[in-house]
Amino acid sequence: MPRKTVIIGGGAAGLGSAGGVKAADPEADVVVYTQYEDVAYSPCGIPYVHGGEIPDFERLFLAGKQAYVDAGIDVHYETEVTAIDTAAKTVTVTGEGVVPYDNLIIATGWNYADPGVPGGDLGGLYYVKNIRKAMEWDKVISETKSAVVVEAGPLGLEMVTALAHRGVETHLIDPSPYALSMMADPDIMAPVEESWRELGVHLHFNTTLEAFIGGSDGLGDADGKVRAVRTSGGEIAADLVVISTHKTPENTLAKAAGIKLGSTGGMIVDERMKTSAPNVWGAGDVVEIPHGLTRTPLQGLTGSHAYAQGKTAGTNAGGGDRTYRAVYVPWGTPAGKWVIGGASFGEATATALGIPYVKGEAQGISRARYYPDVQPVKVKLLAEPGTLRLIGAQMVGGGEGIKERADFLAQAIRFGMTLHDLSTMENVYSPAIGALNEPIVVAATNGVASARSAGGARIETARKA
Amino acid sequence: MPRKTVIIGGGAAGLGSAGGVKAADPEADVVVYTQYEDVAYSPCGIPYVHGGEIPDFERLFLAGKQAYVDAGIDVHYETEVTAIDTAAKTVTVTGEGVVPYDNLIIATGWNYADPGVPGGDLGGLYYVKNIRKAMEWDKVISETKSAVVVEAGPLGLEMVTALAHRGVETHLIDPSPYALSMMADPDIMAPVEESWRELGVHLHFNTTLEAFIGGSDGLGDADGKVRAVRTSGGEIAADLVVISTHKTPENTLAKAAGIKLGSTGGMIVDERMKTSAPNVWGAGDVVEIPHGLTRTPLQGLTGSHAYAQGKTAGTNAGGGDRTYRAVYVPWGTPAGKWVIGGASFGEATATALGIPYVKGEAQGISRARYYPDVQPVKVKLLAEPGTLRLIGAQMVGGGEGIKERADFLAQAIRFGMTLHDLSTMENVYSPAIGALNEPIVVAATNGVASARSAGGARIETARKA
Repeated sequence: MPRKTVIIGGGAAGLGSAGGVKAADPEADVVVYTQYEDVAYSPCGIPYVHGGEIPDFERLFLAGKQAYVDAGIDVHYETEVTAIDTAAKTVTVTGEGVVPYDNLIIATGWNYADPGVPGGDLGGLYYVKNIRKAMEWDKVISETKSAVVVEAGPLGLEMVTALAHRGVETHLIDPSPYALSMMADPDIMAPVEESWRELGVHLHFNTTLEAFIGGSDGLGDADGKVRAVRTSGGEIAADLVVISTHKTPENTLAKAAGIKLGSTGGMIVDERMKTSAPNVWGAGDVVEIPHGLTRTPLQGLTGSHAYAQGKTAGTNAGGGDRTYRAVYVPWGTPAGKWVIGGASFGEATATALGIPYVKGEAQGISRARYYPDVQPVKVKLLAEPGTLRLIGAQMVGGGEGIKERADFLAQAIRFGMTLHDLSTMENVYSPAIGALNEPIVVAATNGVASARSAGGARIETARKA
Repeated sequence: MPRKTVIIGGGAAGLGSAGGVKAADPEADVVVYTQYEDVAYSPCGIPYVHGGEIPDFERLFLAGKQAYVDAGIDVHYETEVTAIDTAAKTVTVTGEGVVPYDNLIIATGWNYADPGVPGGDLGGLYYVKNIRKAMEWDKVISETKSAVVVEAGPLGLEMVTALAHRGVETHLIDPSPYALSMMADPDIMAPVEESWRELGVHLHFNTTLEAFIGGSDGLGDADGKVRAVRTSGGEIAADLVVISTHKTPENTLAKAAGIKLGSTGGMIVDERMKTSAPNVWGAGDVVEIPHGLTRTPLQGLTGSHAYAQGKTAGTNAGGGDRTYRAVYVPWGTPAGKWVIGGASFGEATATALGIPYVKGEAQGISRARYYPDVQPVKVKLLAEPGTLRLIGAQMVGGGEGIKERADFLAQAIRFGMTLHDLSTMENVYSPAIGALNEPIVVAATNGVASARSAGGARIETARKA
């Protein structure tokens, strides 16, 4: 009899898991439960449809439902799993009752952190996530005059740019002194913030959200819709509020089932993506994964991570053998008119964690200086004092090669490459596609020189900014 | 008294050397001899001015002559060095007589290999190299109806595309069965060749040049100008012939001075770029450098290599300490409407050298599938059977990230990364700049699967194509 794997969640982690099970055990009985009407679309594309870069939502669908049927994956749409019993090896499903499994993969994803202020039940508060809702909200954006984006996380960045491109008067509020402060350094974000100002965006940093304020219907009664937000810096009028607070793991089922959670609230998994419960695996934003250098647990990584974790969980649930390692977190995203990216951590995080570092920086270029459309590429490398082993990197540039450099630098950190190794790296020189001096090489060379000339005196001391 | 370093050659290697000496020993007396009117321009940009991508030749100049004066580098323009006496530590210079040195750096560069056929003294034969001549030739191109490019090397590729963009009827002749056969594989070049045909280029492969044929002045006398080339496949009419035979080291002076040359004709240097003669260093296209894996000597690398070698030679000549290693040769260039690139070697070279390999290929994309202007990125990885250590890579794509991937893959080869390591690499996923699945990761994953499923049976046997 085929073994039955139940997967809770139809996102990148859930579907990566389903594929992993089928690859390891083509006879396996694979059931995916999702509370949504769809699977296999790319939620990451939603802000770019709002911004007009992508012409319609239909493009975000990657495969038709039939493709899963054909692959022998049984997706139950708009179906909720309400409980897990790891001893009985069953899940309770609305409308289906108690369903047994041989193996279970929990890929329940994430939610936005509750803003925790009054007025959260008003209309006009947009949590970007589901594509069907996004289609409705897109019509709302067309009617919107003024919007507030709450918190400058990755999605907040994208939505600020998207709303500005749509001609909406856009305000960004964030309690930190600069945007994307949980990942990026202020020098990397400065040009991004400048480009938002050029787009007419109003930036409110060091500003805390205090309440959503509702409007009235003109007769003195509340109309149930947001008309403004109250902040530590005053009131800001808004027809629409996009809430992009940080991601929290959707761990309700896991917690109730007694599965061990870590400090982030994400499930703790081993290298095979196995949870603390027998026959239960996890993948995606509901698990936490250690950082490769600091071993700090991380949660809320990218769709690419979720998919790879799913593949690992599914392969192992299907009887195969695959491991997933600690992460070095290459990242990148358009922001304003620039593209930013990096790997591991930057100065702000190193400082917060008390990690000493030496620094090599370069303001380089993406093509020959004289070639049309050459773009700036700023590279900043952080290395361990003494060994000069790379421990982090951040970049900002016009876009060319930022993603590929981030991938490379994450792998360089994983392999223990030093600034010496990067300063002696060969690079392609061809005027239309690469400059004589690769910016990474220049940054590494500067880092080596800085470490040498200062005899260690330029090691940045770990201090709060 | 300051030590005097004489540098022969004003290209990337020569000027990199001059900078290296000054960095190591700011008091050094540095004299650069060049037979040309200029230094510090980018010859690599010339084909792109001819093609119209770069609007004028003036942009190719990187620094004014004053910049070298200011840096304390004494450049003697239009000056020829006619002999070296390594025992007496002197050079003989036209117009200056016998000039003593403490250290000598030979950076005399390269020449095109002599086509070795009759008619080589006719007008209308263009050897792309010097910028002043290129300015004159650009006017000739404007008047040209039909051109032949001789040999499909890196410069030939660029000139074919440039001439086609200028509306010239362009023919490419090459004795090999496909373009760039000394570096690239046929499957990588196939889309390039197709795009040339779309541009109206006539491709003549397996075709040998036999003679340049002169025209007559209408009265029956020879006019001294080329009117056609004779080939093994017949005669091709041409007002202009661009000769891009392979680069040979300009070793006349070195050879006469008894400096040890290698099998390529390039000077043999150690890791500090020191030649066999006391106090004599070398850099750039006049030296040969071993390939990092095969130890085969390579000659005629890029301007980026020449510059780095010059820096090394200059630093050591100036009393510093810097090493230059064996090379893994990342390369890349636009070709037709595509960009091609790679690192180390491809299947054709592996086969010719009798090196066995397993292969991982992927047809990937540069952005999310649904994001506008997404480009194809084909990646092919070669690995050592058994260990699956990466030994080579080739790519063809729309352009995005080809250069940065080539840099990365060369460094991955240097660091002994395996297909397993690359298949478990993290990657940035952000719709506008990177796809869910990085093409390198997919290619590596396919390579691992292929090696595993075949149990080694799919190891490509080394055979002549």
